[in-house]
Amino acid sequence: MTTKQSVDLILYPRWLAPMSATPAEAKAGAVAFLENHACVIHQGKTLDVLPQDECRQKYSAQFEYNLSKHLLMPGLFNGHAHSAMALLRGFADDYPLMTWLQEHIWPAEGKHVSESFVKTGSELAICEMLASGITCFNDMYFFPGTLGEVLRDAGLKGSISGPILEFPTPWAQNADEYLAKNTDLIQEFNKGGDIQFGYGPHAPYTVSNATFEKIIDQAQANNTWIHTHLHETAFEVQQSMTDFGMRPVARLAKLGLFDVHSQAVHMTQINDEDIENLAGKKCHIIHCPESNLKLASGFSPIQKLYNAGLNINIGTDGAASNNDLDMVSETRTAALLAKAVAEDAEAFPAYQAMYSATRGGALAYGRDKMGSIEAGFEADMIAVNLDDLNTQPVFDPIAQFVYASNNRQISHVWVNGKLVCEHGQVRVIDTDKVRHDVEQWRQKLKG
Amino acid sequence: MTTKQSVDLILYPRWLAPMSATPAEAKAGAVAFLENHACVIHQGKTLDVLPQDECRQKYSAQFEYNLSKHLLMPGLFNGHAHSAMALLRGFADDYPLMTWLQEHIWPAEGKHVSESFVKTGSELAICEMLASGITCFNDMYFFPGTLGEVLRDAGLKGSISGPILEFPTPWAQNADEYLAKNTDLIQEFNKGGDIQFGYGPHAPYTVSNATFEKIIDQAQANNTWIHTHLHETAFEVQQSMTDFGMRPVARLAKLGLFDVHSQAVHMTQINDEDIENLAGKKCHIIHCPESNLKLASGFSPIQKLYNAGLNINIGTDGAASNNDLDMVSETRTAALLAKAVAEDAEAFPAYQAMYSATRGGALAYGRDKMGSIEAGFEADMIAVNLDDLNTQPVFDPIAQFVYASNNRQISHVWVNGKLVCEHGQVRVIDTDKVRHDVEQWRQKLKG
Repeated sequence: MTTKQSVDLILYPRWLAPMSATPAEAKAGAVAFLENHACVIHQGKTLDVLPQDECRQKYSAQFEYNLSKHLLMPGLFNGHAHSAMALLRGFADDYPLMTWLQEHIWPAEGKHVSESFVKTGSELAICEMLASGITCFNDMYFFPGTLGEVLRDAGLKGSISGPILEFPTPWAQNADEYLAKNTDLIQEFNKGGDIQFGYGPHAPYTVSNATFEKIIDQAQANNTWIHTHLHETAFEVQQSMTDFGMRPVARLAKLGLFDVHSQAVHMTQINDEDIENLAGKKCHIIHCPESNLKLASGFSPIQKLYNAGLNINIGTDGAASNNDLDMVSETRTAALLAKAVAEDAEAFPAYQAMYSATRGGALAYGRDKMGSIEAGFEADMIAVNLDDLNTQPVFDPIAQFVYASNNRQISHVWVNGKLVCEHGQVRVIDTDKVRHDVEQWRQKLKG
Repeated sequence: MTTKQSVDLILYPRWLAPMSATPAEAKAGAVAFLENHACVIHQGKTLDVLPQDECRQKYSAQFEYNLSKHLLMPGLFNGHAHSAMALLRGFADDYPLMTWLQEHIWPAEGKHVSESFVKTGSELAICEMLASGITCFNDMYFFPGTLGEVLRDAGLKGSISGPILEFPTPWAQNADEYLAKNTDLIQEFNKGGDIQFGYGPHAPYTVSNATFEKIIDQAQANNTWIHTHLHETAFEVQQSMTDFGMRPVARLAKLGLFDVHSQAVHMTQINDEDIENLAGKKCHIIHCPESNLKLASGFSPIQKLYNAGLNINIGTDGAASNNDLDMVSETRTAALLAKAVAEDAEAFPAYQAMYSATRGGALAYGRDKMGSIEAGFEADMIAVNLDDLNTQPVFDPIAQFVYASNNRQISHVWVNGKLVCEHGQVRVIDTDKVRHDVEQWRQKLKG
């Protein structure tokens, strides 16, 4: 009789989607999901994926989960959020972008944004994100160090892009101060792996060439990324033509932004020249379809960008605009919308959408051992109960997840092999306190 | 001391959205929601809406619900479904419309569709719809009498449009047989109010002028409606130009379809001439945004149709295409997409979207005393728990419902004042049996 290997955790799902095949490989016939396999987790990482019978013979664990009606898949990676803005959810809806910003959001932010605002808002956002299966996310908001501390205290992950603007806000007075504060955070946090900081120049229309050049130098020196809103609106493109005589992508390409690790968020209003300027470069696309729709910003031709060889990740944007942080629904919207925009029902199929929401995010943020269920990878994963009537019958669990699942069917969420949320109940943040603090902020904001 | 009036049911919600104001009235400042009001229900109808304190003095009830964290609103009206196709959910995804129909759906239907298929599929669909707050829906599918019986047995409501085609299916052999079967069902069901039948000519490209003329005559004679897919795809428009020398809307306008009570489903690919042909007529628009996206059919300019004075209702389409029957998510998609299509962030605001999903449906199907919480109206309503973190904080409950709610937050669903679903648990259909029957069908379909 052989001795079984003792491990931390074994999961026995009905279906397991490793997401190790690229969308192109899956289209060419690579296995999209495994049936009746087990996932063995030890010391925060996936140790093995193997048939359930073999697993029972080979391993024993302190904790085992029978997930007989579930799909096990990598956790979702929300590629673009402004977490703390969850406090401004529904504060001002159905306004044009500039009215919304100038008459509602910016005045409220100028008056209220502080470390305390960011702490409560971030906690609210993280609870919502965990419950809907998001195990890592990128964030761009003021007082990013406060978010970093919230994540560190909860044992969670984040890729935080501290904002940089030319004008003063409650966090900093000018571009150099933003830049210096970000560099401090990068030096404080980036040694560990779970929480990483990069630079977040807000947008081409709020950051000068000189500042972009400094950021590019600093990002290279500190081995991190640059995250920016890009081609969000037609207005932005027009303004760039007036101010710089070229389109924003052309301008930033000339400055060398895409020659370093970067993420371009939104990318509506693009033409073939823009795509040529990005193809083959170190830039990743973060697609926020629901935000683009709600603010009437435009349609990102996401399948065209994918076909040009660009890695695609999906983001919710902030809850002040969009108004939730639900990557399940955002991924569905991305898949549905891509087909209509491409005028091709075969565009952005279910597997590709799921890949963009998981592994695509890990790749976009340089997290090479995240976003896939494979030996040696970080054990960040979710179980989705497909037994609810709205996902019956199951012919293809990946299509059921992308096109029919409700985020409330996510029964378990693990980060580094640790159960952080079960049946929507967050275990690593005091939700009663969050609820109380949010109500205090609601009263202040309503003022 | 005054004697209190004894009634069946009193609901004490935090917020109550009567939806009695039109979107135009709401925009002009009419009250969108009431705070701390009560809804008094007796004998299946709303008897009174009044401040909670006054209500406690005036009425007593056998059942009272304290809904202190909830929004009470009319039940959702799903304007277009093919319910039984829920059995084909995820059966074939990411194919172009014609490949999907001709190579996957029609062969499966030809082989399997029967009364038994329709019974199980309809029950599955109804359970999903009730749990997500749909208290009435329109359906177009084969063996519509079977659906009528399922609804009658469960004490539910439906507006059923029996299909009419020129070619044979398991339900009928030719247009005259479809028409005659539909007329029989109208005569059987339409005397009562809860379940009503109309005529459902499938589409301009599957029904001849001669058949449309007969249907128009019969609909008038039987005082019912005509429901048809219209301008779903560019292909349909091209084919009509070839076959009839005019666009489908122009052709059907000439035949007189819009001079009778009618519903046009989809309405992508339309121009100003099409809109002129509909404005001021007896036609209602059923908008199915997610289906239009997924099948890459096109974008319906829904705000333009609304601005032309047309009543708008929202539909999920069948779960074989779309792949759920979730009007909460469909309404959100409608609101988000309308803004991008109109290139106007103020288009289709939250109130208008909620109106289209409730009262708009009632009006589209001639149910004058449905879709609004007012004295004398049918007591079909839902309570939405806005206390979950994804809908916190609450500044505007209507915006929270449209832009941020998950259908799992619908805690109670009443039809004619009867609680038919509580916390997602359907009370009027045996869900264990449905689950069992669906699994049998899955195995047969996978075959």
